[in-house]
Amino acid sequence: MKTPPSLQIRTLAEFFGTAWLLIAIVGSGIMAERLTEDPGLQLLQNALVTGFALAAIIAALRPVSGAHVNPAVTLTAAAVGQLSWREAASYLPAQVAGGIAGTLLTNVMFGLPPAEISGTVRDAPITWLGDLVATVGLLSLIFTLVATRSYNYLPGAVGAYVAGAYYFTSSTGVANPAVAIGRIFTDTFAGIAPQSALIFILVQLAAATLVTLTHRLLAASNRST
Amino acid sequence: MKTPPSLQIRTLAEFFGTAWLLIAIVGSGIMAERLTEDPGLQLLQNALVTGFALAAIIAALRPVSGAHVNPAVTLTAAAVGQLSWREAASYLPAQVAGGIAGTLLTNVMFGLPPAEISGTVRDAPITWLGDLVATVGLLSLIFTLVATRSYNYLPGAVGAYVAGAYYFTSSTGVANPAVAIGRIFTDTFAGIAPQSALIFILVQLAAATLVTLTHRLLAASNRST
Amino acid sequence: MKTPPSLQIRTLAEFFGTAWLLIAIVGSGIMAERLTEDPGLQLLQNALVTGFALAAIIAALRPVSGAHVNPAVTLTAAAVGQLSWREAASYLPAQVAGGIAGTLLTNVMFGLPPAEISGTVRDAPITWLGDLVATVGLLSLIFTLVATRSYNYLPGAVGAYVAGAYYFTSSTGVANPAVAIGRIFTDTFAGIAPQSALIFILVQLAAATLVTLTHRLLAASNRST
Amino acid sequence: MKTPPSLQIRTLAEFFGTAWLLIAIVGSGIMAERLTEDPGLQLLQNALVTGFALAAIIAALRPVSGAHVNPAVTLTAAAVGQLSWREAASYLPAQVAGGIAGTLLTNVMFGLPPAEISGTVRDAPITWLGDLVATVGLLSLIFTLVATRSYNYLPGAVGAYVAGAYYFTSSTGVANPAVAIGRIFTDTFAGIAPQSALIFILVQLAAATLVTLTHRLLAASNRST
Repeated sequence: MKTPPSLQIRTLAEFFGTAWLLIAIVGSGIMAERLTEDPGLQLLQNALVTGFALAAIIAALRPVSGAHVNPAVTLTAAAVGQLSWREAASYLPAQVAGGIAGTLLTNVMFGLPPAEISGTVRDAPITWLGDLVATVGLLSLIFTLVATRSYNYLPGAVGAYVAGAYYFTSSTGVANPAVAIGRIFTDTFAGIAPQSALIFILVQLAAATLVTLTHRLLAASNRST
Repeated sequence: MKTPPSLQIRTLAEFFGTAWLLIAIVGSGIMAERLTEDPGLQLLQNALVTGFALAAIIAALRPVSGAHVNPAVTLTAAAVGQLSWREAASYLPAQVAGGIAGTLLTNVMFGLPPAEISGTVRDAPITWLGDLVATVGLLSLIFTLVATRSYNYLPGAVGAYVAGAYYFTSSTGVANPAVAIGRIFTDTFAGIAPQSALIFILVQLAAATLVTLTHRLLAASNRST
Repeated sequence: MKTPPSLQIRTLAEFFGTAWLLIAIVGSGIMAERLTEDPGLQLLQNALVTGFALAAIIAALRPVSGAHVNPAVTLTAAAVGQLSWREAASYLPAQVAGGIAGTLLTNVMFGLPPAEISGTVRDAPITWLGDLVATVGLLSLIFTLVATRSYNYLPGAVGAYVAGAYYFTSSTGVANPAVAIGRIFTDTFAGIAPQSALIFILVQLAAATLVTLTHRLLAASNRST
Repeated sequence: MKTPPSLQIRTLAEFFGTAWLLIAIVGSGIMAERLTEDPGLQLLQNALVTGFALAAIIAALRPVSGAHVNPAVTLTAAAVGQLSWREAASYLPAQVAGGIAGTLLTNVMFGLPPAEISGTVRDAPITWLGDLVATVGLLSLIFTLVATRSYNYLPGAVGAYVAGAYYFTSSTGVANPAVAIGRIFTDTFAGIAPQSALIFILVQLAAATLVTLTHRLLAASNRST
């Protein structure tokens, strides 16, 4: 793989990577919910599996597409100039489509109707604050690792962060618009009602904006030194 | 170890590696089942231990034999030209024999008859779909890591993936014909009835075929660019 | 990031890193306490999330500020000459302020009053001994890794150590004055009453003194050889 | 640390490393037993903490002393010529003394009498077989990693293996004579009655002999090729 992969291949990678992430999130949620009654133990299973899967996805796909698998990451990368807007325009729909496809496949795999709409409303304002914190943290982590060229830590650190964010933010750390959209289409443990998903996405875009502005500010102050 | 190890040594490594994998899967299943009543907590113990053991096995044996410990990996590697068919013909029986040997040893270690035939039928079609997904994912992960020369991530990423696949696929992620065969010979937590194991193997071979075709397609499109 | 970051940036990194650590500790404690009744399972969730978050924080911030996020580390680093006292004087208040800020934000995120004073007295002398052991171990680990230039292990090893120290010391391994102070301001699972926090801090400073003296002794004996 | 550390420093490292390992094993056992009633969840906490601590210990001490912290490793290393017998004679008593010291300190830290003799008899012959398997596996893992110069994997792989071995061997994977001796002196979750510890040690020495012979056989066959 001496020449960089084509935009088509990279877009495919984003599709499959996001699909796999949703399989992990939704599938482990269903499995945990069917096997265990303790809500903490359910969440622990869900969180660990999501972290494991995300680490594996990033390890495999970072050299291909950057392994964003998250529109908030792609938008921030474009806004700070690490990705062209043309590339972003190719990644974003692939991530959303991948997220939905992964959820539908998971529903089928577990014997459920392919698509349902989640009835799980998650609309306490503190939940929105929670996801703002989760997304700012995730983006800060990723772009700090990139700024210091610590690429080798990306799989482990991002996987660990996301597993942890299930617990340390009051939103269980969604932090990803493609995940928020995908989770609309399953009425299981990980489901998110459409109206709540919409708010999560707005909050995540606000977080991306915040991190972009901070990044530019730091870059400017760095140049002026 | 400057000269590459002989085929005999590498075949031995595949035998012992697969045996160890089955010890981990079957042994932790028995231990979890004896200690805990919550099915989710049982599966968590089984999944974590399998992932830990597989990561250690791959770390140790990759420089020796490639640490396939999985006929689906060996067949795909041969089909895409990363291993000669002669080498594959040596690896495959060693993996199957290792899987059976590991299971028998585990039975004895836990005070059970050396060989029993599992009565655990796992034959819902959605379970087969689950294992197709699990195996396609596993092979895609491994061959993407190899294609991008990310060998250092193999132990961690494959271990994490397999631990996660216990939860995110409806088959608890068997994804390995030598594991399917080995698990026939224990009538404990991890056991698989022969008729179900047979179907798992067919599904896993279909997954290997699918990944091989995709690999060739991508390689061809890469050359034509 | 070719030029080293300015002291301002590094101080900011210490502020945010410590804030994030407290979000992880306090947030996962609240979440675990709300979801689960088994105290061991609560502590397991709290410990794993703290370890995950700390590993991610160190991976991201070590190239920026050294990722001390712990006054005991900063004081020891200054005392053994790896950091100037002027830098330490900038780090220390940032860590304490970050720890408090992270706790307050977490309280708000989980729908609690921003600041409460913990009523959880932890004052058995064996608990103080426990934290002496925890802190001596943590500092020994960090400064041994630094002495052997094993920087790459810092995130994983320190995260694993701190997750483990929740269990293997009778104090659940606080080992960090900024954490002790931050935890005063939440009356939840992770809270520490002010009088107990004060003793923890004194014990941690004693540990830092002990490790500093040992470090100097070893350095002197090394030179004389 | 350009010159290799003196034998005195290395011996001290083995003392403290083994002490820390016993603190982790015994301490997390006591904590788990006090907090949780489910035996599987107790063992999970004990196993994870042991794996975490061992990984951290190896990361820190491998560049100093090799981080054997295990007489079976030291004896095998001497028998295959990777360590002089004079060095082994210095390591072995330090490991045993460290194991006892760590256990006594842990007892005190948790409010128990400094030294008790465990009454937990573990004497089923299948348990001995279990520890033979555990020790052969541990030594094979370590010496394969060393033979292929995969030093970077040692902390993670050995930590993961030992955490897994709690579950996949019927002895809960003691695999270390210094651990067997240390665990005599606590009458808590991790305690081992003296008569059982003695048998474990004999089994572990048999495993070390077996691995030494295999190592020599492989080396001889390698030379003759």
